[in-house]
Amino acid sequence: MANNDDQFKKVIAHAKEYGYVFQSSEIYDGLSAVYDYAQNGVELKKNICDYWWKAMVQMHDNIVGLDAAIFMHPTTWKASGHIDAFNDPLIDNKDSKKRYRADVLVEDYCGKLEAKIEKEIKKAKKRFGDAFNKEEFVSTNGRVLGYQEKIDTILKRLGKSLENEDLADVKALIEELDIADPVSGSKNWTDVKQFNLMFGTKLGASADSAMDLYLRPETAQGIFVNFLNVQKTGRMKIPFGIAQIGKAFRNEIVARQFIFRQREFEQMEMQFFVKPGTQKEWYESWKDTRMKWHLSLGLGKDNYRFHDHEKLAHYADAAADIEFRFPFGFKELEGIHSRTDFDLSQHEKFSGKKMQYFDHEENKSYVPYVIETSIGLDRMFLAVFSNALMEEELDNNTTRTVLKLPAVLAPTKAAVLPLVKKDGLPEIAKQIVDDLKWDFNVSYDEKDAVGRRYRRQDANGTPFCITVDHDTLEDNTVTIRHRDTMEQKRVNIEELRDIIKKEVDVKEWLMKM
Amino acid sequence: MANNDDQFKKVIAHAKEYGYVFQSSEIYDGLSAVYDYAQNGVELKKNICDYWWKAMVQMHDNIVGLDAAIFMHPTTWKASGHIDAFNDPLIDNKDSKKRYRADVLVEDYCGKLEAKIEKEIKKAKKRFGDAFNKEEFVSTNGRVLGYQEKIDTILKRLGKSLENEDLADVKALIEELDIADPVSGSKNWTDVKQFNLMFGTKLGASADSAMDLYLRPETAQGIFVNFLNVQKTGRMKIPFGIAQIGKAFRNEIVARQFIFRQREFEQMEMQFFVKPGTQKEWYESWKDTRMKWHLSLGLGKDNYRFHDHEKLAHYADAAADIEFRFPFGFKELEGIHSRTDFDLSQHEKFSGKKMQYFDHEENKSYVPYVIETSIGLDRMFLAVFSNALMEEELDNNTTRTVLKLPAVLAPTKAAVLPLVKKDGLPEIAKQIVDDLKWDFNVSYDEKDAVGRRYRRQDANGTPFCITVDHDTLEDNTVTIRHRDTMEQKRVNIEELRDIIKKEVDVKEWLMKM
Repeated sequence: MANNDDQFKKVIAHAKEYGYVFQSSEIYDGLSAVYDYAQNGVELKKNICDYWWKAMVQMHDNIVGLDAAIFMHPTTWKASGHIDAFNDPLIDNKDSKKRYRADVLVEDYCGKLEAKIEKEIKKAKKRFGDAFNKEEFVSTNGRVLGYQEKIDTILKRLGKSLENEDLADVKALIEELDIADPVSGSKNWTDVKQFNLMFGTKLGASADSAMDLYLRPETAQGIFVNFLNVQKTGRMKIPFGIAQIGKAFRNEIVARQFIFRQREFEQMEMQFFVKPGTQKEWYESWKDTRMKWHLSLGLGKDNYRFHDHEKLAHYADAAADIEFRFPFGFKELEGIHSRTDFDLSQHEKFSGKKMQYFDHEENKSYVPYVIETSIGLDRMFLAVFSNALMEEELDNNTTRTVLKLPAVLAPTKAAVLPLVKKDGLPEIAKQIVDDLKWDFNVSYDEKDAVGRRYRRQDANGTPFCITVDHDTLEDNTVTIRHRDTMEQKRVNIEELRDIIKKEVDVKEWLMKM
Repeated sequence: MANNDDQFKKVIAHAKEYGYVFQSSEIYDGLSAVYDYAQNGVELKKNICDYWWKAMVQMHDNIVGLDAAIFMHPTTWKASGHIDAFNDPLIDNKDSKKRYRADVLVEDYCGKLEAKIEKEIKKAKKRFGDAFNKEEFVSTNGRVLGYQEKIDTILKRLGKSLENEDLADVKALIEELDIADPVSGSKNWTDVKQFNLMFGTKLGASADSAMDLYLRPETAQGIFVNFLNVQKTGRMKIPFGIAQIGKAFRNEIVARQFIFRQREFEQMEMQFFVKPGTQKEWYESWKDTRMKWHLSLGLGKDNYRFHDHEKLAHYADAAADIEFRFPFGFKELEGIHSRTDFDLSQHEKFSGKKMQYFDHEENKSYVPYVIETSIGLDRMFLAVFSNALMEEELDNNTTRTVLKLPAVLAPTKAAVLPLVKKDGLPEIAKQIVDDLKWDFNVSYDEKDAVGRRYRRQDANGTPFCITVDHDTLEDNTVTIRHRDTMEQKRVNIEELRDIIKKEVDVKEWLMKM
C-alpha cells in the first residue's frame, strides 16, 4: 500500500470517479465541508443504516426507534447547555481580516515542531541505515527531545487555558510563540473570543414574533425530550433504549479530512435508559456489544481500538471511543458515553415537567441514567470505504483496483454480463437481471471486453459477476465470479438467487456477532 | 364513519396514543407545524420509503439514487428562482402587530360565506326532510346563489391580483370586504408585502466572510446540480432518472392540518431526463406508473384522482397532481411535472458550465428535458394512516378500533402472545419471537387478557397475532389471527415465517403493480 497521504487522496478520487461521494454544489465550485452521496454512495449509506437499525432495533425487544425533527424548541438548547457552552475559541487577524480557531493555530505550530522531529528521524535513518533504531533515537537525541518537550509544554498550557476559559492566556500563548497569520504573515491579532457552533435561523415572518431556531448540533436531545412519550405509549420498561438516525449541523471553522468532519453530518445514536446505579455495567456491556457489531463486518480486528476518556465531559461519569484506523490514523468512529441523569434532569428543570420513570419493581419514581452509543454515519462510511479500496498485484504482473466492501453493504450485489453482444446472450442476461432485481440491486453491463468489465465491477465494489456465454444456451449454466478471490464457478441459473442471498443477507452477517 | 372533522381529530389523537406521531418538543409546549415520528411512526415512514425506493430505483435499470446535502451553494437558489420569487404575500395589522397571509385572510372570508351556504342547506334539509334534493336546492335558492356568486367574484379577483403581483389590489380587496384582524378586530392594515419562504442561516464565523445559506426549500435542485456527475460516473444513457428522499424546509406562515403542511418536511422525488420532444409521452407514462404504485397498496381506487393543472408554473409545459381523499377532502399527494429544460438551462447560465448530454444515437449534445415525480413523504404517511384508522361494529354489539395498514407497511408484523403467563407458554412465545425477529419486526405481549391484547394490536396496526396455548405444548401448533378478518387459523410453528412473509414482503406487493 502507498503511504497514508497518497492512500487518502486515492480514496477521495475513487469516491468521486465511481459515484460514491461528490463535493456539494460542485458546478458552483463547491460548498466547503459539505458533500453529496452519489448513486453508489447513497446505497452504501442506506445499507450501513439498515445494518445498524436491524442490529439495534429489530433484534432488541427493548429498543425502539424515533425520528425527531431537526428543528426543536430553542429552550432545548438552553437546557442541554449548547447555547451557553458549545463554542470554539476564535481569533481574528487585524490585517488580513481572516479568522482562525485559536487552538488550531497553536496545534498547527506544534505540528511544525513534529515535522522537524520527523526530519531528524529521516536524516538519522539515512545516516545509520539498517542499524537505525527509531525508538532509541527519539528517546536519546537531544534535538528531538527538545522539540518534544516544547510540544508537551505548549499543549499542556493550551489545554489548561481552554479548560479554565482563560482566553487571554490563549492569546498570550499565540503571541509568545510568535505565530503569524498563515495567509498574510501578520502578527497583529485581536483578542480570542468564543463563537457558538450552532447554525441559527428564524421561524415565522413577523419581526415581533420571529423565534430564534437552531439546526440541532446533535440528535440526542430529540430522544431525551421524547423520552416519556415513547416510554408511555410504547409501554417500555427500564432498561430500554431509543434509537435514531438523523442529520445534525455544526458551523465548524476548521472542517477537513473529506467526509470525516462535515458541517452537515449524520448520526446513528441509541440512548439506553437504566436504573441509577446500574450504569457502569450497562456501559461496559454496550462497549462490548458495539465492538462486536463493528467486528462482524470483517474489516479487521487490528483496525479498531478503544480509547477511554480520562477527562470527562461535565455530564458523563464514563466515556470511551471506538477508534478506527482511517487513512490519516486512528480516529474516533463511535462514542459510548455514560451520560448520567444530566440531560433528563436539565429538561425537568427547564420545562417544569417531570422526566421520571415509575419503577413498579422498586415501587418508586426516578430520573433514569443514560448510556449513549453514538456513531458518525459519514465516518462509518469512510471507514468501510477507505478500508475496502486496494490495489492488488496479479499473477500476470498487472494490478487491479478493487473495492472489497463487505458484501452485505455493497451497493450493487451482482452484475450480469453477456460474453458477447449477440447470439441471444444479451437476452438471457437481461432475463437474469429481471429475475434477480426483485431481491437485490443488480446491474447489466455489455460494454467492452469481459475482462475489462470485471475490472470495472471490481473497482465499483460489486461482489459478484455473472457471465452468460455460449454454454449457457446448451445447459442453462453461467459462471459466477467472486470479486475478492476472482474465482469462477459454473452454476445453474436457478441457483443464483440462493448463492447471492447467502453472501449478502443482513441476517447471515449479524449471526457472526 | 364519523364526520370528517371528528375523523381527523381521531387520527391525530390515535397517532399520538399509539406512538406514531408526536408534536415536536412537546415538553416545551411544542414547536408549531413541526412533528416527530415516534417508535411506530419511524417504522411506518421507513417502510414507505423502502416501498418507494424499491419500486423506483431497484426495479428500474435506468434509475439511480442520490442523497444530496440540505446545504447547497446559494447561487443554486438564484438560478432556480427561489431567491427572487419564492414568496408569500403578507400583511400586518398595525394595532395587534400580528402578521397574516393576505390571500388566506381573503380565503377565510370566503370560507365564512361557504359556512353560510351550509347553514342554508341544513335549514332546508330540516324543513323538507326526505323530499330534500341538495343539488336542486343550491342551484335555485336565491340566497345560496348570491353567496356563491360573491365567493366566485372574490376568488377570481384575488387570483388575478396575485398573478399580476398587484399587491395594492390585494390590500384594496381586504379593505373593501371590511376584513378585520381575527385576533383584535382591528381593520388598521399595512400594505401587503412579499415574504421569502426560505429559512436562511450563515456559514462560517467571520463577519466578512460569512456566506448566506438557505435550507433547501425543495430537494429537486440537489439532483439537477449533480446531473452530469451522475450521468458520467454512472455511465447513464438518456432516458434515465435520479431518485432522492430527503428533507426540505419552508417558513410557512400558515401551516396546519397536522403533518400535511409542515415547516420541516420530507420529499421522495425522481427527476427523469429525456430527449427534448419526447417529454409528453414520458409525462403520460409516469402519471400512469405512479398511479399504479399508489393503487398497489390497496387503499381504494376511489380515494385517488388526477388533477391536471390548467395554469402552469413558468418552468412547466404540463403538470398534474395525484390527489388523495384525506379526512379534510381531496388534496395533493404527489405531483408529476414536465419541467422542460428550465432548471438545467438556468444552472448552465449561472454556473457557466455546460449541462448537456451527448446523445450518441443522435450524434449531438442537448440539454435534456425533465419529468419530475414528487411525493410528500409526510403526506403519504398521513394518507396511509388516516385511511387505515377505523371503528368497526362487531357481532357482539361492541366496537373495535383497528388500524388497517397495508401489511407491507405495518411497523410490527406480528405480536406473539402466550395465552397465560405460566405452564411454559411465555418461554415458547419468546422462542418464537427470537426466531422470527431475524426476518421481521415482531413483539411479545403477555399483559392483560388475550382479547384485550388483540384489541391493542388491532389499534397498533399489527397484521398478525400469534397465540401460544396449551395445545402448543402437545402438537407444536399455534393460532395465527388476521387483524382485518379476525379469523384464526391453527398452524404449525414452523410454518409461521412463510405465512407472514407472503403477506408482508415488498416483492409480493409490488407484483400487483
